[in-house]
Amino acid sequence: MLDIMSNGKLILLRHGQSEWNASNQFTGWYDVNLTEQGEAEAKRGGQLLVEAGILPDVLYTSLLRRAIRTANIALDAADRHWIPVIRDWRLNERHYGALQGLNKAETKDKYGNEQYMAWRRSYGTPPPELADDSEFSQANDVRYADLDKVPNTECLKDVVERFIPYFLEEIAPRAQRGENVLIAAHGNSLRALVKYLDNISDEEIAELNIPTGIPLIYEIDAEGNVLNPGGTYLDPEAAAAGAAAVAAQGGK
Amino acid sequence: MLDIMSNGKLILLRHGQSEWNASNQFTGWYDVNLTEQGEAEAKRGGQLLVEAGILPDVLYTSLLRRAIRTANIALDAADRHWIPVIRDWRLNERHYGALQGLNKAETKDKYGNEQYMAWRRSYGTPPPELADDSEFSQANDVRYADLDKVPNTECLKDVVERFIPYFLEEIAPRAQRGENVLIAAHGNSLRALVKYLDNISDEEIAELNIPTGIPLIYEIDAEGNVLNPGGTYLDPEAAAAGAAAVAAQGGK
Repeated sequence: MLDIMSNGKLILLRHGQSEWNASNQFTGWYDVNLTEQGEAEAKRGGQLLVEAGILPDVLYTSLLRRAIRTANIALDAADRHWIPVIRDWRLNERHYGALQGLNKAETKDKYGNEQYMAWRRSYGTPPPELADDSEFSQANDVRYADLDKVPNTECLKDVVERFIPYFLEEIAPRAQRGENVLIAAHGNSLRALVKYLDNISDEEIAELNIPTGIPLIYEIDAEGNVLNPGGTYLDPEAAAAGAAAVAAQGGK
Repeated sequence: MLDIMSNGKLILLRHGQSEWNASNQFTGWYDVNLTEQGEAEAKRGGQLLVEAGILPDVLYTSLLRRAIRTANIALDAADRHWIPVIRDWRLNERHYGALQGLNKAETKDKYGNEQYMAWRRSYGTPPPELADDSEFSQANDVRYADLDKVPNTECLKDVVERFIPYFLEEIAPRAQRGENVLIAAHGNSLRALVKYLDNISDEEIAELNIPTGIPLIYEIDAEGNVLNPGGTYLDPEAAAAGAAAVAAQGGK
């Protein structure tokens, strides 16, 4: 059982189903919207927080619509729409490089399962770079104008290296002070965080999948230690089914 | 014409129609939702910003759902959902005291037009205090736990005194630096701001009404001077009709 009265908590929430989750396309930094199902998942996520009595004190989101809207809907459902909000690109999904926009099943057929899984799950191998003039590129997106260099592809290691230092400096201290911090983000930025929190190896992280819309709670003590290794899903059965569905993506 | 290329702008946006706008009840700090019409007004507000080429760089909101959702919807429509957000209680609607929850027409009938208009529009006369144990009170609302004293009634002068110092310290400097600042707030908190920006007397402010959902632009120079006195509504015809409707509230 979590001790909901004293320690701070990290509340990891992957956005609800997006339009490109539904159409089985690689998304990355492309800024697609939620589907109706995704909106319903977000609302359910907020209701699960209320049922568990774990109410966010502050929200961190990526700069992407699907995470921002998931957080807005979940917080509205939890009557916590008024909490402070911080948005940062470091919470963004992994940039999927030249795969952004491509259909997952077609990509698997074209390149074979081994290459497909390497691009999706290997820790250190990024996909080919996305051309700046691609319709799926963010090279000229005004929201990233302050970055020295907008990524044109990333592997999970790149996400760890941009996100975890920010997490340790900006987010973790809040949980260590006893705040409940909602982190509304993405499959791979949350995999990067879970890899850090649970000290998962570069190889084993390939097997970890995070379902959409189900809050994953980590209880944190004042020194930043995780008190419930592996975290606690608020709806474990739905989470297991959701993770299996993510793992199976690319099938037909 | 506004010079949209160089000077910073304040974008004042009163929330779209709320449930209690629709039912003609005094709302104040009571946290009602938008109606469907209010959601549509918010979306239209965002579209007007796009058409005018005035895109917000940062958002300030009150702690109330109707302003927060209006901003979320408008920014989503303007593809600016990713900008930084700051929420503060000082942008809240005027606390309407013991009138919160009451029907406007019934209140006018019961107390007479003179008293009704004094409560609605006099600068220095607050309505009677709301009891802390009222179902419409915010005395024990966790979002105001940091305040020394949660208001139980306010006149417009009280709103000026809580909001304008915050505006001058936190918001105005951004516009003076050239940023476009979206201020998503309420009929009376925006009347307080317009009173300051246009140097309107305590008496004349009674005649000023702000319509829902239509961006009102003030262009600001580096010293904080208003370059377009009176402001510029992005849809002047709709704004005039909306302001007249606000003025007529309480009729049948």
